[in-house]
Amino acid sequence: MPTEQFARFVVDTPVSAIPAEVMARARDAVIDTFGVALAGRDEPVSAIAARWAREISAAPQAGLWGHGLRTAVPEAAFANGIAAHALDFDDSMVTLHGHPSAAVVAAALAVGEFVHASGEQLLAAYALANEIAGKFGRAFGDEHYLRGWHSTSTIGVYACAAACARLWGLDAAQLCHAWGLAAAQMGGLVRNFGSMAKPFHVGQAARAGVLAAWMAKTGMTADPRILEGPNSVLDTYGGADRIAPEELAGRLGKPWDLLDPGVNVKRWPCCYGTHRGLTGIFALRESQGLRAEDIESMTFGYLPGNDAALIDREPASGLEGKFSMEYTAAAAFMDGEIGFDTFTDAMVARPEVRRLMRKASRYRLRPGDFEAGAPVFVDVTITTRQGRHELRVHHAPGSRGNPMDAAQHEAKFMDCARRGLDDERARRLLGLLRDLDRVPDVSQVVAAAAAKE
Amino acid sequence: MPTEQFARFVVDTPVSAIPAEVMARARDAVIDTFGVALAGRDEPVSAIAARWAREISAAPQAGLWGHGLRTAVPEAAFANGIAAHALDFDDSMVTLHGHPSAAVVAAALAVGEFVHASGEQLLAAYALANEIAGKFGRAFGDEHYLRGWHSTSTIGVYACAAACARLWGLDAAQLCHAWGLAAAQMGGLVRNFGSMAKPFHVGQAARAGVLAAWMAKTGMTADPRILEGPNSVLDTYGGADRIAPEELAGRLGKPWDLLDPGVNVKRWPCCYGTHRGLTGIFALRESQGLRAEDIESMTFGYLPGNDAALIDREPASGLEGKFSMEYTAAAAFMDGEIGFDTFTDAMVARPEVRRLMRKASRYRLRPGDFEAGAPVFVDVTITTRQGRHELRVHHAPGSRGNPMDAAQHEAKFMDCARRGLDDERARRLLGLLRDLDRVPDVSQVVAAAAAKE
Repeated sequence: MPTEQFARFVVDTPVSAIPAEVMARARDAVIDTFGVALAGRDEPVSAIAARWAREISAAPQAGLWGHGLRTAVPEAAFANGIAAHALDFDDSMVTLHGHPSAAVVAAALAVGEFVHASGEQLLAAYALANEIAGKFGRAFGDEHYLRGWHSTSTIGVYACAAACARLWGLDAAQLCHAWGLAAAQMGGLVRNFGSMAKPFHVGQAARAGVLAAWMAKTGMTADPRILEGPNSVLDTYGGADRIAPEELAGRLGKPWDLLDPGVNVKRWPCCYGTHRGLTGIFALRESQGLRAEDIESMTFGYLPGNDAALIDREPASGLEGKFSMEYTAAAAFMDGEIGFDTFTDAMVARPEVRRLMRKASRYRLRPGDFEAGAPVFVDVTITTRQGRHELRVHHAPGSRGNPMDAAQHEAKFMDCARRGLDDERARRLLGLLRDLDRVPDVSQVVAAAAAKE
Repeated sequence: MPTEQFARFVVDTPVSAIPAEVMARARDAVIDTFGVALAGRDEPVSAIAARWAREISAAPQAGLWGHGLRTAVPEAAFANGIAAHALDFDDSMVTLHGHPSAAVVAAALAVGEFVHASGEQLLAAYALANEIAGKFGRAFGDEHYLRGWHSTSTIGVYACAAACARLWGLDAAQLCHAWGLAAAQMGGLVRNFGSMAKPFHVGQAARAGVLAAWMAKTGMTADPRILEGPNSVLDTYGGADRIAPEELAGRLGKPWDLLDPGVNVKRWPCCYGTHRGLTGIFALRESQGLRAEDIESMTFGYLPGNDAALIDREPASGLEGKFSMEYTAAAAFMDGEIGFDTFTDAMVARPEVRRLMRKASRYRLRPGDFEAGAPVFVDVTITTRQGRHELRVHHAPGSRGNPMDAAQHEAKFMDCARRGLDDERARRLLGLLRDLDRVPDVSQVVAAAAAKE
C-alpha cells in the first residue's frame, strides 16, 4: 500500500533518523525561501493577498512575513506562499519539475507558528515534505508538466499536506485522508505563467495543504489510497513516463532528494537565462583583473533557444533589465555585483552602463560549435585592448554543479531581507534562521520579521 | 474569443432579458438547495466545516444557513456548499454530469448577502451561472467525468466564479481572469465518492469560485483565455467528446439549460435507485386503492446493473434503509409517504413494516424483457388477494419527464427545513424564498434561517 507507506514515512520518521546533511540543506532552503518572500512582500500580487487577509479578518494565528498582520493559518500560508514566489526568485528541483520550497515553507511555518513547533521540528517537516515532493514528482512523471500542469502547485500540495500533517501530529491513516483531500484541490496550469496566477498557484497549494491536513485531523474522510488503483490521481493526472508509487515508496530517503539532486538556488534576482553569462563575467573580471574602460566587446554564445527568455536587448526600465544579458553583463562589470538595486530604472539609465552595454551582444552557437544533446552551457568571451578571454560556463552558482557557499547564501538573504526590514532586524532574523535547529519556537522567527502595519 | 463571449453573457445580460420561466426555475433550485442544506446541517461533514469556520473566526460577512454562526464570505460558501451536498439530496443536471446548484447557490448567496443583493439579482446570478455550468459541461465533455473528475466541482467552480462575478459587478475582462484563477483551483475526483470528500468538493468549488472572483475584482491576473488555444484547460481536462467553446458560446440561452434539459430534483431522501420503484408503489397504491393487509407480493424488475447501489435487502438501521428497495417500498405503502422520518432506526424496526418488507423482492430483467439501449425503467408489480397490478415506471418525480409540482417542492422543503428549524420559522423562510424575486436584500433570507448558536 504505497500511499500508506509514504504517509508512515512522513509521520513516523524520527528526527534522529534524518541525516544532519539533510537538515542542513533544509535550513538553507528555509533561509532562502524566507528571504525571497521578504523581497517579494511588496509585489502587486503579494499586496492583493495581504489585502485579502485584512478583508476576511480572521483569528491572528500566524503572521504574514515582514508584515505586522496576522491571520488564520491557511490565509497566512496563502499570502506567504504567494510572496515567496512573487519574484520567481525561489529555489527549484528537477525531480519535482518545479519549485519545492515556497509553498511548503509557507504552509509549514504557518502551522508551526500556530502549534509553537521547534525549529528542529519545522526543519524535519520541511525535509520530509521535500522528499514527498521529489518522489511524487517522479510518480506523476515529467509528462504531468507537459500535459499542462504546474507541478510546483499540483504536486506541491501533497508536500504541503505532508508538512502540515507532521507538525499537527496526524497519524498515517489521517495523512492518507489528507492526501485524498489534497488531490481534490490540486490545481495550477502552465498556461497561467506570465500572470499573477503563477504565484497564486503557490499560495493556493500552501493553503490547500493546510486545509487538507486540518480537515483530516478533525475527522474528514477521503479516499485513503488516492495514489493506487484504477482512476487513481496518478492515472488521471500522471504522464506515461511516471514511476510506480510502489517502487518509489521503497526509495524514500535512498537517497534524499535534498541531497540528490538537491535544490537549485537562484543567485541573482534576474532571468535565469542571464545566470551562466553573469557567472562568466564575474569569473573573468576577477581572475583576469579586467577593467571596464579597457573592454572592446563582450559576447555570449547560446545554444539554440536558450536565450529565448532574454527579450530585452536595450532595456528602458529596471524590470526590463532583468531580461537583458547585455544590461546585466554591463552592470555586473561596472558594479562588481548584481542585486535588487541593480534593477531600478535609474541604475539602468546610467550613461556609463549604457556605453558598456553597447559593447555586449549575444549570438547563437552553430551546430558545429557543440554536440547534439550536450549539457547546457554559455560561451562568454571578453575582448580588451590587452587580449581575448574566453570561458565556457556550464553551471550557474546555486546549481548542484556549483553550489553557493554559506557567505553567498547569506548575502542573498540580506539583499532580500533588506527590501522589507532595516539592516539590524535583517541581521537578527538571519541569526535566528542560521541556528533554526536550536530555536525552541518558530513563532520567534516570524515575530522577528514582523514590521509595523 | 469564446472565453470573453461567455464572460460578457454573464456580466452583461440584463435581468429583463432572462425569461420569466428561467427565473422561476432558478427560484425552485434555490428553494430546493436551501432546504437540503438545512437538512444536511448536522451531518458529520457539515459539523466539521462549521467547526472550521469557528476555528478561523473570520469577519462575520455571511451566515452558515441554519446556524447563528457568521464568517467570511468564502468560508460561508464552503460550509454551506458542504451542507447542501452532505445528504446527496440536491438537484442534478445531465449536461453538467453532476449537481449544478449546491455550490453555486452557496457561493452566490454568500456574496449576495455580503453585497446586499436583491433576490432578483441573486436569481439572475444563479440562472446565468447554471447556464455556464451546462455549456461548460459540454465544453469538457462527458469523458471529463469518465477520466476521473467530479464535474460537480471541477466544472462547478466556473459557474461559482460566474455567479460571484455577476454579484460583485466584475466586468467581462475581470471574469476572464477569474476563470483563469478558477482553472487553477479546479479539483474533485470520482475516486473520493463514498467519503466525506464528496461534499467537501462542493464546498471547495464554492469557496474557490468566491476567491477567484474576489481576486480578479482586486486586480489579480491570470490567463484570460483559459478555454482557448494549446494547453487550454479544455485540452488538459476535457474529453474527446467535448464540443468546441466557439460553438457553445453561440448557444448561450438557446435554449437555457434550466429549461432544457432542466435540473432533476430528488423527491425522497434515499438512494435514487429506489425512486422509480417508489413512484410505482405510490401510483398503484392510490389508483388501485390497495391496502397493506391485502398484499401478497411486491416485485421490482431492474435493468442489469441499475440496482447496484441498493446494497441493503434487510436493513438494520435507518441509514441502511435508504439503500433498500424492500424497506422503502414497505414504508411507502404503510405510511403513504417517504421523508426523513422514514429513515430512523425505530421506523425501520417496526414489526408491521418488516412483515411487509418480506413480501418485497427485486429481480433482474432478462434480455428478452427489454430492448438494448432502452431508456431506464423499473417494472413494479403488486399482487394482492384481489389481483395483480403492474406498472412500468420511466420517470421518477422531479425528473424532467415527471416534474414535481409546487406543492411537492414545498413539501420537500418543509420536510428538510424542519430538521433544522421549528415549523413556524421554516414556513416563514419558505414564504421568503417563494417570493425571492421580490426580496430586497437576500441577507433577510439567511437571517430568517439563522438559529441560536
